[in-house]
Amino acid sequence: MSHVGKKRKLDKSRQDRLYFDSYSDVTIHEEMIADHVRTNTYRTAILRNSESIRGKVVLDVGAGTGVLSVFCAQAGAKKVYAVEACSIAEQAAKIVKHNNMEDRIEVVRGTVETVELPEMVEVIVSEWMGYALLHESMLNSVLYARDKWLKAGGLILPSKAELYIAPISDPVAEDRLHFWYTVKEQYGVDMSCMSDFARGCIMNSDITVNSVTVEDVLSHPARFAELDLHSVTVDHLRSVEGHFRCESFGSATVNAFCVYFTVTFPCPDKAHALVLSTSPFKPETHWKQAVLYLDAPTDVVQDTPVTGTVSMYPSNQSARHICIHVDYTIGEQKRRSKTFSIPDWSAEAQP
Amino acid sequence: MSHVGKKRKLDKSRQDRLYFDSYSDVTIHEEMIADHVRTNTYRTAILRNSESIRGKVVLDVGAGTGVLSVFCAQAGAKKVYAVEACSIAEQAAKIVKHNNMEDRIEVVRGTVETVELPEMVEVIVSEWMGYALLHESMLNSVLYARDKWLKAGGLILPSKAELYIAPISDPVAEDRLHFWYTVKEQYGVDMSCMSDFARGCIMNSDITVNSVTVEDVLSHPARFAELDLHSVTVDHLRSVEGHFRCESFGSATVNAFCVYFTVTFPCPDKAHALVLSTSPFKPETHWKQAVLYLDAPTDVVQDTPVTGTVSMYPSNQSARHICIHVDYTIGEQKRRSKTFSIPDWSAEAQP
Repeated sequence: MSHVGKKRKLDKSRQDRLYFDSYSDVTIHEEMIADHVRTNTYRTAILRNSESIRGKVVLDVGAGTGVLSVFCAQAGAKKVYAVEACSIAEQAAKIVKHNNMEDRIEVVRGTVETVELPEMVEVIVSEWMGYALLHESMLNSVLYARDKWLKAGGLILPSKAELYIAPISDPVAEDRLHFWYTVKEQYGVDMSCMSDFARGCIMNSDITVNSVTVEDVLSHPARFAELDLHSVTVDHLRSVEGHFRCESFGSATVNAFCVYFTVTFPCPDKAHALVLSTSPFKPETHWKQAVLYLDAPTDVVQDTPVTGTVSMYPSNQSARHICIHVDYTIGEQKRRSKTFSIPDWSAEAQP
Repeated sequence: MSHVGKKRKLDKSRQDRLYFDSYSDVTIHEEMIADHVRTNTYRTAILRNSESIRGKVVLDVGAGTGVLSVFCAQAGAKKVYAVEACSIAEQAAKIVKHNNMEDRIEVVRGTVETVELPEMVEVIVSEWMGYALLHESMLNSVLYARDKWLKAGGLILPSKAELYIAPISDPVAEDRLHFWYTVKEQYGVDMSCMSDFARGCIMNSDITVNSVTVEDVLSHPARFAELDLHSVTVDHLRSVEGHFRCESFGSATVNAFCVYFTVTFPCPDKAHALVLSTSPFKPETHWKQAVLYLDAPTDVVQDTPVTGTVSMYPSNQSARHICIHVDYTIGEQKRRSKTFSIPDWSAEAQP
């Protein structure tokens, strides 16, 4: 069931409380640790950078269960500050103790914006990426930590993020619309007139988090934004935007865009930078892809250009919630635009 | 992600708004219509009772898309009042028109407690069952409609509801706890100390709606309550309770109870009463089963008695949310009790 209610602005402390509370349950941590692409890429990246980490001081922003902090200690860090605002910090402290790393890892309970560390750090590690990269806007906290606690020339893991978009044809959504045409055959009641209403509900302006099947991607994805974590500013995150141009592989019906991201870890041997990709062409991660449904499907043929601009910015209702605005042109059609957002269950429950 | 927040009491009108809003999206209606067990059983029951429906006036309580009203018209009803409070009523009106039944079906927008009908009815049909039967407490509305609008000796479809309980062994929950013991092998970090925390989160007091596999049911289910829709009162629904006694099929570990329901439709030929069952031993429905996790798993052997009492009552926070309290004794163990409730996302978002 989906609760569709009126939205109102949440005050900042309330937003934060809801956000941090959501990480107090084991499920999200289980999902993140069990995501082998995520956890193994971080592990490999940290171990490959052990020359830069050995003997150094590390800050883990939003440490969760502390798994990345343990990887850093294993890579030889002299000291790791595992900063975590949620009560999961208590579990992180147990895990640190259980792995005999209390001398090297210090779990610090609090937000990175408010905690005091006894020293500057040489390395920042963080797994800050949300759905569509920027949902939950935890990157702001990483940038805050960088500006406040990272020594000049320090290392940031990962050091770069990139955003991609591609037109897709989602058969599941079309099947759901078609369902209403099948009711007569099943039960003798003609419900085909429901399909317009169904289209309005399914192809709405919510960002849908879903696994996109490779065959449903209609062109090479286009990169529309890149964030260099050494130079990007909080100000820049108020609107992350860029252009894209895709060309259809063949004849198909576009009914959505798919947005996904990659993050890149620096490597001593620069030829082998390590990329954590959430592309539909790569093994699935718990981030899946962000699917943005168009109001009406559009036919394309081979090489039909699909062009436009994407901008991503925090929602007015809640700064942790991302909005994605897409201006797009498919072939000879007129320019269209649509604004999407992640449904905000907490805000929706407001009167 | 699960949002765990402080709860507060919602005022009645707010609860109603949230409840009715949830039925304005197409997804829930698609799920209900696509549930063949549900829709076909209602269809068969209505058609089998056509002798009692032909030429009569019917009230459909919470008509949704109006599918049951159409079945009643097909069974020969002279007039069907399809009462629906949500905006889905607009779709019901379209469907009625689309099926050329405007002369026989009148969609009435409003709650059954507030609408005025021009006449008394001979038949009430309603699909009012929620998770664990009573979640959403729509039965109250059916009883209100019965007392206000049903002529003496009228028909109620369905006419009886029964509740069952059985001890189960849920391997998924145990696998999730075991996961934390596998992290060391996967990533070289010992996270086994997370399993207590995980048990607290997973085996919590939420009612989990899940499909229970037949092999995981450890005894014949025991019926603990029966509601006769002709005689049950709103007062009775303040606490639906009963005793149960189960005997284990064999050696196993009980880690949960499973609660489910059946509803029965009267049939002219009483030997063939039609039952809509949500038993784990029957084909799956969208209601699945309600799973109640115990705090600690308990071993049983063949014929170990599992006895106790169950009581189901509306939550203090929201009358539409059900609580299930189970007092139970497994074999020679001391009596234990635990109270469960359906997580209330809307209430949880409150400050």
